[in-house]
Amino acid sequence: MSATDDPAVEKTNSHPLAWSGLIQAYRQYLPVTESTPVVTLLEGNTPLIPAPAIANEIGKGVRVWVKYDGLNPTGSFKDRGMTMAISKAKEAGAKAVICASTGNTSAAAAAYARRGGMRAFVIVPDGYVALGKLAQALVYGGEVLAINGNFDQALDIVRELAQNYPVTLVNSVNPYRIEGQKTAAFEIVDNLGEAPDWLCIPVGNAGNITAYWKGFCQYKEQGKCDRTPRMMGFQAAGASPLVTGKVFQHPETIATAIRIGNPASWEQAVAAQQESKGEFNSVTDEEILSAYRLLASQEGIFCEPASAASVAGLLKVKDRVPAGATVVCVLTGNGLKDPDTAIKHCNNQLIQGIEPKLEAVAEVMGF
Amino acid sequence: MSATDDPAVEKTNSHPLAWSGLIQAYRQYLPVTESTPVVTLLEGNTPLIPAPAIANEIGKGVRVWVKYDGLNPTGSFKDRGMTMAISKAKEAGAKAVICASTGNTSAAAAAYARRGGMRAFVIVPDGYVALGKLAQALVYGGEVLAINGNFDQALDIVRELAQNYPVTLVNSVNPYRIEGQKTAAFEIVDNLGEAPDWLCIPVGNAGNITAYWKGFCQYKEQGKCDRTPRMMGFQAAGASPLVTGKVFQHPETIATAIRIGNPASWEQAVAAQQESKGEFNSVTDEEILSAYRLLASQEGIFCEPASAASVAGLLKVKDRVPAGATVVCVLTGNGLKDPDTAIKHCNNQLIQGIEPKLEAVAEVMGF
Repeated sequence: MSATDDPAVEKTNSHPLAWSGLIQAYRQYLPVTESTPVVTLLEGNTPLIPAPAIANEIGKGVRVWVKYDGLNPTGSFKDRGMTMAISKAKEAGAKAVICASTGNTSAAAAAYARRGGMRAFVIVPDGYVALGKLAQALVYGGEVLAINGNFDQALDIVRELAQNYPVTLVNSVNPYRIEGQKTAAFEIVDNLGEAPDWLCIPVGNAGNITAYWKGFCQYKEQGKCDRTPRMMGFQAAGASPLVTGKVFQHPETIATAIRIGNPASWEQAVAAQQESKGEFNSVTDEEILSAYRLLASQEGIFCEPASAASVAGLLKVKDRVPAGATVVCVLTGNGLKDPDTAIKHCNNQLIQGIEPKLEAVAEVMGF
Repeated sequence: MSATDDPAVEKTNSHPLAWSGLIQAYRQYLPVTESTPVVTLLEGNTPLIPAPAIANEIGKGVRVWVKYDGLNPTGSFKDRGMTMAISKAKEAGAKAVICASTGNTSAAAAAYARRGGMRAFVIVPDGYVALGKLAQALVYGGEVLAINGNFDQALDIVRELAQNYPVTLVNSVNPYRIEGQKTAAFEIVDNLGEAPDWLCIPVGNAGNITAYWKGFCQYKEQGKCDRTPRMMGFQAAGASPLVTGKVFQHPETIATAIRIGNPASWEQAVAAQQESKGEFNSVTDEEILSAYRLLASQEGIFCEPASAASVAGLLKVKDRVPAGATVVCVLTGNGLKDPDTAIKHCNNQLIQGIEPKLEAVAEVMGF
């Protein structure tokens, strides 16, 4: 079946203004050809939302936006890499893909693989993972296997499986993931008309900071922007190997999506920081939660705790932001992915037991 | 403070290609002026995703898309109406808004009101509402008050409060909500280059079918499309007043977002159906869940159960779809809003207790 025969990879919309997904939008910058079967959920094109409350906390005429990648189809930036990884897997004739993941990657892998007509295997350590975390992978039709072992064993097994059986690895070692993710940098430049002065980004496995840096550099080479931003990477204090220079054997943070002690893209992330004259800094869980609440209750934007690390970090180093600078903070995932944290850590509480009368309610409201 | 001074309503992006929210995109069709302070989270511009698996079940060369409005900023189509309702409330000088809602409306109201610098009150019946359902409203900074009464009493109280105190009602009786929601029809036409033959839509309170019909008619009058679609409204069997012609005193369905026995926009919905030569039909909870699973596991799209009613309905009446027709199904909310249903009703189960060895995992995978 050729690419054009396959209804799953049909050219999406007939109108020239319609968004047809990031591969279609940026294909000249991506390792695809006309014969690559594009498996897309119209990911990308996520809003770059002004964040006046955050800007106000900084002052000095600084302008702040958040790149809200939680509005991708499966709720995180992983969709950007997965449309590439799955399209290339399909092009290579794969019938199944596999990853070891307990979170956003497994959801994206399952959704795109199933859409592309492939099986999606997700290997997780047993007893370690809450079912809720896997609900998305399961509902998308992923086949989730729990081994009596730890996460490192799960990772080893998926690598071996991909070497020995006809199943494609879509964990972050898959090189197409970075290619897809770099398009978020393109979109920021396309929206602002220029690269920002600073790019603040949560750093866990360090693939995303690597991808953004690649995107900005590529767009500058192509003359799409005149400069590249300083890459400001922020890690959770309990999982900050790039800040301390040491592997964390037991990383701990409420920001589970960046709870990583030994980042896969360590060297590339350091290169991005050095070449961009950027920095790595850490933020505490309390600072992350404070930024998480600020984003939701002042800006109206509900993100995953890990996403809020970028805003927490910006506020932590706000004295060093140049006057009048433009700053973009990356929000990697949707807050709806983690409702438990929302309930536990929002400041507002349900007020109960009010008499069902106008005056009683008005009084509670302060009238 | 004028609209242009207010950082919350700053013109979003400098680049002409950037999406600046639905009011900016469609202001000529909306009751706003240059002095209306636009409170936006860049809602709208949601993807119109091809649904080849659904089309395949119908055959006859029918083409199917889903309008995935679950990718709005707070996860549902309510954001479209709320950017209008809150912007107009701000223009009128409101300092607070109020609604009675246990679901998507309360989340949208809280997010937009807080972004606009207003207080957001949400009145709910005590003991009836799970905390999880209110997590979003709370995290956005909404002030949620539970009365010792039922939902009808809550509705009566918010109406009275809005009449007697300086607080603006943003429940569905707010006329600006429909105005904002109609832009989804504009986007469909802008994407396809024409109106579809059929528009399949879940119907609960009937505001959305009213809004879509208004949007299609307005676009046709303006010459933006040559035709209007047949409006195919689908209700849950246990809450189908528009199908049966009778109020449901105790509506029941798993699709909580359309569990409504006496729709507020009853007459307008009937007008839309009649003028468009459309139909109202009901679907069972089992049919809804079947479509919900199909969407997730075949198309890679995870929606709320209520959203899947549009697809369940289309499949139920598929014999009546004309050959070669174009059909758009509206998906109103994000599946992440209701993770419990996902876990309970997806077909895939976690497979546990596998030995952490290559061969053991490979065997389970069928290699």
